[in-house]
Amino acid sequence: MMSGAAKNLQGKFITFEGTEGTGKSTQIQLLQEYLRSQSVKAVVTREPGGTKVGEQVRSLLLESTAVPVDSGTELLLMFAARAQHLEEVIYPALEEGKWVLCDRFTDASYAYQGGGRGIADSEIHKIESVVHEDLKPDLTILLTCTLRTAMQRVSKRGDKDRFEREPARFFERVQDAYLRLAENYPGRFEVIDAEQGVEEVASMIEHVVKTRFLLQEPGRMRP
Amino acid sequence: MMSGAAKNLQGKFITFEGTEGTGKSTQIQLLQEYLRSQSVKAVVTREPGGTKVGEQVRSLLLESTAVPVDSGTELLLMFAARAQHLEEVIYPALEEGKWVLCDRFTDASYAYQGGGRGIADSEIHKIESVVHEDLKPDLTILLTCTLRTAMQRVSKRGDKDRFEREPARFFERVQDAYLRLAENYPGRFEVIDAEQGVEEVASMIEHVVKTRFLLQEPGRMRP
Repeated sequence: MMSGAAKNLQGKFITFEGTEGTGKSTQIQLLQEYLRSQSVKAVVTREPGGTKVGEQVRSLLLESTAVPVDSGTELLLMFAARAQHLEEVIYPALEEGKWVLCDRFTDASYAYQGGGRGIADSEIHKIESVVHEDLKPDLTILLTCTLRTAMQRVSKRGDKDRFEREPARFFERVQDAYLRLAENYPGRFEVIDAEQGVEEVASMIEHVVKTRFLLQEPGRMRP
Repeated sequence: MMSGAAKNLQGKFITFEGTEGTGKSTQIQLLQEYLRSQSVKAVVTREPGGTKVGEQVRSLLLESTAVPVDSGTELLLMFAARAQHLEEVIYPALEEGKWVLCDRFTDASYAYQGGGRGIADSEIHKIESVVHEDLKPDLTILLTCTLRTAMQRVSKRGDKDRFEREPARFFERVQDAYLRLAENYPGRFEVIDAEQGVEEVASMIEHVVKTRFLLQEPGRMRP
């Protein structure tokens, strides 16, 4: 129904994954700046969100704890937001040759609704196959950190959302699920230890992106 | 993930389907009153809606035409509302032995997002199999009317919603899809011509319900 195969996707699709407190949003901004210095136009976006429908789903899921949400409902809402996000933001940008840097994508459904909430991978896979059967990220950066670090970073924020209030066990299940995905798709994933400083993590990400994509295009790299 | 099989569903699950203007809500109320006269407790509910999440999805889909919604997103939002509706309303009522009279259910996804919007049945089936693999309505009342009647009835309403503003062709595709479903599942469907008067339609529905369910339970029928 929403096929990426028929489209001419020229840009690179890079997703950032990891539990809360791993510094994804900071690193996405830094990668966008680095890419700009290399004359690559990159769109930064996030899930759930990135569209009007998505932001409404985001606020429904993350902010409204008064409203009970079944784990299956949560999964379907995430994919509903994702379907809109693909049509409105991701496919059009990739077709124009822009790169897309996305804060969370379908791996997050396997990690949070699968690992975290216990929905079987096979069920998530059925929904994924309807929504974007033939689109996979070109690269997925998985940032990891210890539970202790994650908690310290998150505790500095103000109001915690629905997910951030989940107990420590939930975070561990999510991170374990992420690590299993990285093992299963070693060609697509790069796991980076986010216990390191912001600059170190950023330069590792730049290195990965440079060697995977930019050095493949002669004339793209600036001295 | 959301299995009806493990549950002890004692009540009957009756769904009402049909395009706009077929008089579903009136007939549901009348059936509830009839059942009450037969000492059957029946819960009346509707999709999308019936829960807080569902009402939010309903308002997102039906009221906000300013927000663009992809057809795949629409499908997933409908099933998200349905998953919540099953967990919060439908399963608990059926487990308590109450009957559930539901204004639209999954057949509506095949009719509207399938027939109307062109999503393949096989895609809808994948999502259905995740959300309620083993639950089917005990009876589906399909009310049909001509496009002319539907338009006349709908035009008497005030503000039209997203679906009611769709062109005539859309309504015909939806009704055709409903009729195909009825052909494919003759044991579950009863097709009733809603061109007839309210009383006639109501007494046909009562007759169907009486012969299918109430006469099967000796002592249930009142003289």
